[in-house]
Amino acid sequence: MAQALRVALAGLGTVGGGVIRVLDENRELIARRAGRPIEVVAVSARDRSKDRGVDLSRFAWVDDTAALAEADADVVVELIGGADGPALTLARRALSAGRHVVTANKAMLAHHGLELAAAAEASGAALKFEAAVAGGIPVIKGLREGAAANAIARVYGILNGTCNFILSKMEAEGRDFADVLAEAQALGYAEADPSFDIDGVDAAHKLSILASLAFGTAPAFAQVAASGIRHLLAADIAEAAALGYRVRLVGVAEADGAGLFQRVHAHLVRFDHPLAHVTGATNAVVAEGNFVGRLLFQGAGAGEGPTASAVVADLIDIARGEFGPPFAMPAAALTEAAAAPSGERRGRAYLRFAVADRVGVLAEIAAAMRDAGVSIESLIQRGALADGSVLVAIVTHEGPERCVAAALERLRGSQSLHGEPMWMHLLD
Amino acid sequence: MAQALRVALAGLGTVGGGVIRVLDENRELIARRAGRPIEVVAVSARDRSKDRGVDLSRFAWVDDTAALAEADADVVVELIGGADGPALTLARRALSAGRHVVTANKAMLAHHGLELAAAAEASGAALKFEAAVAGGIPVIKGLREGAAANAIARVYGILNGTCNFILSKMEAEGRDFADVLAEAQALGYAEADPSFDIDGVDAAHKLSILASLAFGTAPAFAQVAASGIRHLLAADIAEAAALGYRVRLVGVAEADGAGLFQRVHAHLVRFDHPLAHVTGATNAVVAEGNFVGRLLFQGAGAGEGPTASAVVADLIDIARGEFGPPFAMPAAALTEAAAAPSGERRGRAYLRFAVADRVGVLAEIAAAMRDAGVSIESLIQRGALADGSVLVAIVTHEGPERCVAAALERLRGSQSLHGEPMWMHLLD
Ligand SMILES: NC(=O)c1ccc[n+]([C@@H]2O[C@H](COP(=O)([O-])OP(=O)(O)OC[C@H]3O[C@@H](n4cnc5c(N)ncnc54)[C@H](OP(=O)(O)O)[C@@H]3O)[C@@H](O)[C@H]2O)c1
Ligand SMILES: NC(=O)c1ccc[n+]([C@@H]2O[C@H](COP(=O)([O-])OP(=O)(O)OC[C@H]3O[C@@H](n4cnc5c(N)ncnc54)[C@H](OP(=O)(O)O)[C@@H]3O)[C@@H](O)[C@H]2O)c1
Repeated sequence: MAQALRVALAGLGTVGGGVIRVLDENRELIARRAGRPIEVVAVSARDRSKDRGVDLSRFAWVDDTAALAEADADVVVELIGGADGPALTLARRALSAGRHVVTANKAMLAHHGLELAAAAEASGAALKFEAAVAGGIPVIKGLREGAAANAIARVYGILNGTCNFILSKMEAEGRDFADVLAEAQALGYAEADPSFDIDGVDAAHKLSILASLAFGTAPAFAQVAASGIRHLLAADIAEAAALGYRVRLVGVAEADGAGLFQRVHAHLVRFDHPLAHVTGATNAVVAEGNFVGRLLFQGAGAGEGPTASAVVADLIDIARGEFGPPFAMPAAALTEAAAAPSGERRGRAYLRFAVADRVGVLAEIAAAMRDAGVSIESLIQRGALADGSVLVAIVTHEGPERCVAAALERLRGSQSLHGEPMWMHLLD
Repeated sequence: MAQALRVALAGLGTVGGGVIRVLDENRELIARRAGRPIEVVAVSARDRSKDRGVDLSRFAWVDDTAALAEADADVVVELIGGADGPALTLARRALSAGRHVVTANKAMLAHHGLELAAAAEASGAALKFEAAVAGGIPVIKGLREGAAANAIARVYGILNGTCNFILSKMEAEGRDFADVLAEAQALGYAEADPSFDIDGVDAAHKLSILASLAFGTAPAFAQVAASGIRHLLAADIAEAAALGYRVRLVGVAEADGAGLFQRVHAHLVRFDHPLAHVTGATNAVVAEGNFVGRLLFQGAGAGEGPTASAVVADLIDIARGEFGPPFAMPAAALTEAAAAPSGERRGRAYLRFAVADRVGVLAEIAAAMRDAGVSIESLIQRGALADGSVLVAIVTHEGPERCVAAALERLRGSQSLHGEPMWMHLLD
């Protein structure tokens, strides 16, 4: 059998530990598939003394993580995390030292993917990141290779397992957001600081990577309009259900003459759409190609095993010599896409207001809609929420988003409204 | 830009014509992604004069299809079909002439995959066949590469669009099999001779390819126990629905200590399983890995556009130089798997009998079950079918399949039974 692929591993947390376990447990199988053994030779993390549940004594320990870049290895696997800092330093140094790099770091790729891809190409090295989007699901490969014959009109999906876990639980148990979030944190499904997840930032990182692969554009994270599920009420989920929809946090990227549109936003997904059946921490991505039609990829979006599975898949590709330009085409060929404005996008919207229980409030809302040119398909006003306010939920007819935005603008600051209105888009 | 990848194309029917259209319509995009243009240079089919809706005058026409193997091209694309005959002759000749081969021909691969893979490896050529399984869905890539870090316990899915189209229509419209088949034929969704599809042979071809990739075994088509949906009644679908299930033709491959088990059979799929929501001509494949968990790939399983999309994806991989052993590992490393017997498999079964409407029939069936050791979970007897017979539908408790087989054996030839009993497995 050919020489082993030698791996230097930086970061020994959830994913890093998982990679060691995958390589241990499936050692022989992986060697058969890869055509040669894959062997960790050196590791680094912050704390050498931490018990990580795996025997590290077989590997060289490197105190200075950045120096792993020049370790006697073929590949550097970066599983530290963070857009900048030690992860970026390591990736840059490794690529300029001619090492292949595998990473699960979507934040780093969203911010520095283009630079790193160019560095990889310059040195003939691989830069691979299957684990960075949708965990164990081979969706990077699905877009970069599987759907490569197609012009992609749209790529969208459920990209954050924490949010989907919370939404599924709110849905199944009729509970409110804060309550379920606290439980998810206790269970380890949500971080102590959950804002990257629940405000859509993590999904936006991933979406910008998918968009680059789908449209041949440079990753443009700054253009993603991201919002999350913080303001969602149990009542929104109940109203959605009554209308035949489920609430999902969906990242959508579309490219057309108007430019590149990227958004992470809560959506009402019709019950017969595959994404409506994605529950728990599962992720799913849909790509729409001009010949293949709608492709769906679904699976575990995070967690030790699935994420490590994707990292090791990248290592196997490298061991086989099956790799090429990280973003499907040479970095220099990626175009800078103009951000498409959302205002002219047409669709149906769900709008929910918590309002004071007094005369005239409904008229005020209805007038704002009318004056902004929003046509109402259905309106439900329901009895008091826990705090005594009344819920008004509207579904609009199809129309441009700028009208909905204008209506909400008119209502901003109104004394009748309690808290932020909730605006969701309908996905049919 | 680098030199074009030159393609010799054999077969200009549904898929072959589609390949020309994809390469024409997405020409520039494909060149950007592939790193170089992909150009058809020579073509062949039976009838030179046939109008195929594409301009063929740009390509060299080769009368002797097998001679395409030595045309001045880098890749031969085989889209003729058939396990043997001209497709096999061409593939063999092309590989031994050092040409890469791309094919959509599952029958040929199921029967001769191992030989062809060895020939490809011997000459350093690619042998790629993404289109051969599940049409446009990149499931070959998903198993060969995406899930490569995992020991796969089971791979299963809806692999035949014609059957799924028929089943969905029977389900939606409450119609019987023969009736819907005739309509599918009229619409071009089913062949004039539909037996390859409806008797599970086509799905068995595909399953044997998936099993090889998943388990590192040589394709073992002869070991697939295949049956189809010919004997299914509208009443079966109604009973299944009442139990919370949908009927799907599912190909399942599993490997464990007992060997390799491969079966294509009608299953009752629980309503909350993703396969239950796959309707129409859509295909879906699930792979269960020991680290990644359950991966689902879903999309169009056939048709000109989706199938051609997969063929061209293979060409792009070749243009990029990203290819390796066809069945994930060298042909010589693939093991010969012993066929696992079905008898000791445990599960729940659905059994349906059309019986004479007279005293004692139910007792006869119940006695056969008891004597064979089959424990009945539920039994429904319903009023007359169209021909005056009565329907008896049974769901068994979990138990070994040999007991169910023994019960059916006891009932074989009984005067009380009209036609073949229907045996389906439950997928929860
Ligand atoms: N967890 C998932 O399910 C998942 C899924 C997809 C992608 N990812 C991505 O995978 C990456 C790793 O995530 P994770 O969940 O494994 O994180 P984690 O459990 O927090 O582990 C991070 C590791 O990096 C090490 N580290 C942190 N700062 C360092 C520094 N300055 N120098 C050297 N080492 C340092 C830590 O060392 P100590 O252990 O010594 O503290 C730890 O071993 C992130 O980019 C994340 O976004 C994770
Ligand atoms: N159709 C699908 O959706 C689909 C999906 C997945 C895989 N596939 C596979 O793709 C392959 C092609 O299928 P298809 O649907 O495109 O078939 P098709 O429409 O029947 O086309 C077959 C082509 O092969 C040519 N041909 C037949 N016999 C030949 C011979 N002896 N010598 C030279 N050329 C010959 C025919 O020539 P003439 O046109 O001159 O008669 C025709 O152009 C098959 O292996 C099939 O299983 C098809």
